[in-house]
Amino acid sequence: MRLICCCSALLLLVLLPRTCQGGNILVIPTEGSHWINMDILLQALHSRGHNLTIIRSSKSWYIKDNSTYYSTYTVPVERSIDKEIITRIMSSIIDFERGALPLMSFLHSSVGLLDTVIEAHTAVGEYVSAIIDDRELIRTLKDTKFDVVLTDPCWGSGPILAKYLNLPLVYNVRWLIPEEAHFAIAPSPISYIPVAGSGLTDKMSFFQRVKNMIFYVVSQIQAHVAAKQVYQKICEKYLGPDEDFYQLMIDADIWLMRVDFVFDYPRPTMPNVVYMGGFQCKPAKPLPQHLEEFVQSSGEHGIIIMSLGTFVSELPADMANEIAAAFAKLPQKVIWRYKGSRPDTVGNNTLIVDWMPQNDLLGHPKIKLFVAHGGTNGVQEALYHGVPVVGLPVFFDQYDNLLRLEYRGAAKILTLSTVDKDNNFLKAIQEVLNEPSYRMNMQRLSRLHRDQPIRPMDNALFWIEFVMRHKGAAHLKPASLSMSWYSYHSVDVVLFLGGAVLLVFLSTFFLIRCLCNAMCKSKVKHE
Amino acid sequence: MRLICCCSALLLLVLLPRTCQGGNILVIPTEGSHWINMDILLQALHSRGHNLTIIRSSKSWYIKDNSTYYSTYTVPVERSIDKEIITRIMSSIIDFERGALPLMSFLHSSVGLLDTVIEAHTAVGEYVSAIIDDRELIRTLKDTKFDVVLTDPCWGSGPILAKYLNLPLVYNVRWLIPEEAHFAIAPSPISYIPVAGSGLTDKMSFFQRVKNMIFYVVSQIQAHVAAKQVYQKICEKYLGPDEDFYQLMIDADIWLMRVDFVFDYPRPTMPNVVYMGGFQCKPAKPLPQHLEEFVQSSGEHGIIIMSLGTFVSELPADMANEIAAAFAKLPQKVIWRYKGSRPDTVGNNTLIVDWMPQNDLLGHPKIKLFVAHGGTNGVQEALYHGVPVVGLPVFFDQYDNLLRLEYRGAAKILTLSTVDKDNNFLKAIQEVLNEPSYRMNMQRLSRLHRDQPIRPMDNALFWIEFVMRHKGAAHLKPASLSMSWYSYHSVDVVLFLGGAVLLVFLSTFFLIRCLCNAMCKSKVKHE
Repeated sequence: MRLICCCSALLLLVLLPRTCQGGNILVIPTEGSHWINMDILLQALHSRGHNLTIIRSSKSWYIKDNSTYYSTYTVPVERSIDKEIITRIMSSIIDFERGALPLMSFLHSSVGLLDTVIEAHTAVGEYVSAIIDDRELIRTLKDTKFDVVLTDPCWGSGPILAKYLNLPLVYNVRWLIPEEAHFAIAPSPISYIPVAGSGLTDKMSFFQRVKNMIFYVVSQIQAHVAAKQVYQKICEKYLGPDEDFYQLMIDADIWLMRVDFVFDYPRPTMPNVVYMGGFQCKPAKPLPQHLEEFVQSSGEHGIIIMSLGTFVSELPADMANEIAAAFAKLPQKVIWRYKGSRPDTVGNNTLIVDWMPQNDLLGHPKIKLFVAHGGTNGVQEALYHGVPVVGLPVFFDQYDNLLRLEYRGAAKILTLSTVDKDNNFLKAIQEVLNEPSYRMNMQRLSRLHRDQPIRPMDNALFWIEFVMRHKGAAHLKPASLSMSWYSYHSVDVVLFLGGAVLLVFLSTFFLIRCLCNAMCKSKVKHE
Repeated sequence: MRLICCCSALLLLVLLPRTCQGGNILVIPTEGSHWINMDILLQALHSRGHNLTIIRSSKSWYIKDNSTYYSTYTVPVERSIDKEIITRIMSSIIDFERGALPLMSFLHSSVGLLDTVIEAHTAVGEYVSAIIDDRELIRTLKDTKFDVVLTDPCWGSGPILAKYLNLPLVYNVRWLIPEEAHFAIAPSPISYIPVAGSGLTDKMSFFQRVKNMIFYVVSQIQAHVAAKQVYQKICEKYLGPDEDFYQLMIDADIWLMRVDFVFDYPRPTMPNVVYMGGFQCKPAKPLPQHLEEFVQSSGEHGIIIMSLGTFVSELPADMANEIAAAFAKLPQKVIWRYKGSRPDTVGNNTLIVDWMPQNDLLGHPKIKLFVAHGGTNGVQEALYHGVPVVGLPVFFDQYDNLLRLEYRGAAKILTLSTVDKDNNFLKAIQEVLNEPSYRMNMQRLSRLHRDQPIRPMDNALFWIEFVMRHKGAAHLKPASLSMSWYSYHSVDVVLFLGGAVLLVFLSTFFLIRCLCNAMCKSKVKHE
């Protein structure tokens, strides 16, 4: 092909107006890793001149009180989804998964943990009530004349408050109480769209499709049980008896989806879904001197980094020892973000740290491999920098995220139940290091991801401001949002037309029979 | 809202590489108004340094032989969809529609004209065969090493040739043999997506949904009959006995769709569909002096322009007279593009022209109203410039196009059957001129349309070049493309699971009955 690099993507420059007078944005964020990516978006919005106001609970553990770029209203609550509960759930999952079969693992997180999930939603429900019942706060919010509500709807607080305040709504979203967000907004044929937790890809055998259907039904029940049990009551109390929570939730103006189709399987989407996968990714900055020296000391072998994310602070001692021992056998240098007790088997080539500049390490020329738990943020960063992955998923979407890379030949997945057996961990690392296809595939994905007409972050900012300029994006919302399920699926029309056809068929049949009978009788009479 | 103009859309600058060495693009265009917009895209591709090669038939009437910006291969054909046939079909439709009810009109174009449509497809089929049978031409095409095929797939030639030459494929598309293209590529719930020709919007009553379903079934049959009758045979002859034309047709890498969701109803879409509605629109250039003088002479009243597109050269004399007489009664000046005999009733305020710079007139400050037939190009230009429309649709998508504007309060539609009765034409023009909501609504649509993160033309160019850089866009094509209909709709899975549930239910029932029987017998025995 004669088309060469000089004819690469149209170069798009984003010129930020210097004297931009911003709008007012009300932010209803979610804790944990969800806050990490919301925070990046908020900093970008702040730099565009917008005023940001955050509502947080008095038990927030990630979202700090007032900062240099946002102000907060702190709502006192008695209980919340606090760090201890989450950490406890994590440990329970890790212990369970070590011995579990995949189906059992799904049932454990779908059914076994349903009570815990509902308990968490209930805490969020109480938080919403506390906000709305605070008349002083509500009056202040109404007086501020916000232009838009920006929220992560993996809990129900944001959509309800936006509706109560009658404000346009933008989602920073991937999960929605608690299904994958596309399932709520876009048609999702179960025949090629794997349900979260199913461990399937978009190419399934017949029995895999059967499994996917079962998982779909279970996850839908779970989603609707959680919604009905908690949020429907709040909707009816504060928004009127006819307000349906599920319809309210899917009525957002713009869905800024934290994936793109280099990472996710291609599937139907909607006009108001904007893909901003990898919006948080950016070129690497120089490392702090001590880290740079450690990295350079790896010579031609390069470095491996490992992190299991924000929730998993400690692994079972035997598992941590097995991992450290495997690392010790490698010629590479290893930087391992780990907050648990230092394993006995840590080698000289391994640096254990509390925190690391993950993006800058992933973008370093010496990086060879990323051992990751499969959280969306980390996986997207690995993809952006083209670094192959050995995955050690713990819970929720992590296996699915890693599977999307493994399916495209860019990662290898280990499970908690087998990671410390038969040298599996060492073998997986050596395979991904020594087999060039892993790196080549990941770099191909990286090239595709970076080749976009507009940077994901700029696209996200554009659409938030679009909603602010036009007071919503009603022209992008489909008419289906207000339809009943039987109208949407044309069940009534098909029954009606089927009935009409049957009626015509039967009438004709009886008419012919009557005629035949009449003719026979007349024949008999004549004889 | 404190968000003001200075904080408007991110400004995006497209920097064209100066020394861009272009790729090779093979173009398989369509005649008529379809060529007009393809030509605009080709000029833009040429200015980006690409080499364009067009295959045209010896009976092409729009696509000229070699030009300054493309070269051509002319394939001799015995018959083609020539101008005379199209003009004859137009006249037949106009005569028919004047007296027809909407349903009859649909049946006339769907069933009555089916033979003519199949005849036209057959001519295209012969053209494809003539190309492939020309071994010399095929060798030259293969030697040229094209990077991509660009085609308008409203006929079947482009997809078949792209497959035969094994090249990536980009569509400049709105219609696809002969259904609206979305119906082929994206899930299309019939409950809120009106079928072309149904005269419905995205909000339907029960009986409108019944009507839409009937129209859907008829149009699907028509689409598949045309495809099977003509193109399937060609596929089997040249591409192998297992090649399915319909699957081949929906397998394009990128679909550059000539609508957007300011114009069209919001609906499900797919990752490889790129919306470039209005890509041909641009700010007005100054008018030629004689036109500018005529326009300025309208004073405060402003001007009205009228055009019924490229196909309708003449109206029935009585209808033309009625229209001219209505114009004569207005204080505005009128520019009417009309090639028929000059009506007797033309007023002093009306200038009849063979051709007019439509975009420049629509963008002129004196413009008040556009009388249009509703072709996509004209409607998009009116929307871009915010000019309200009185619509006089003739055939195919024109009523639907105008309906999208009328539904949003930006146009008023007349029908051929009533335009010359009861002063309808004059009344409609006066209503749209005097009722400010028409202009305000159209200008609101214009603001929404212009507020995009990237200009539609730049987006289209980006994605064509993306396909050239990456040799396709396989990562954006859904896995569903290769699935059978029953797998896609999970019919087999639902039957299997339904059967399994029934089996369990029946087994349990019979088991209980056997147990009951056994217990009863044992009881009787004991008694």
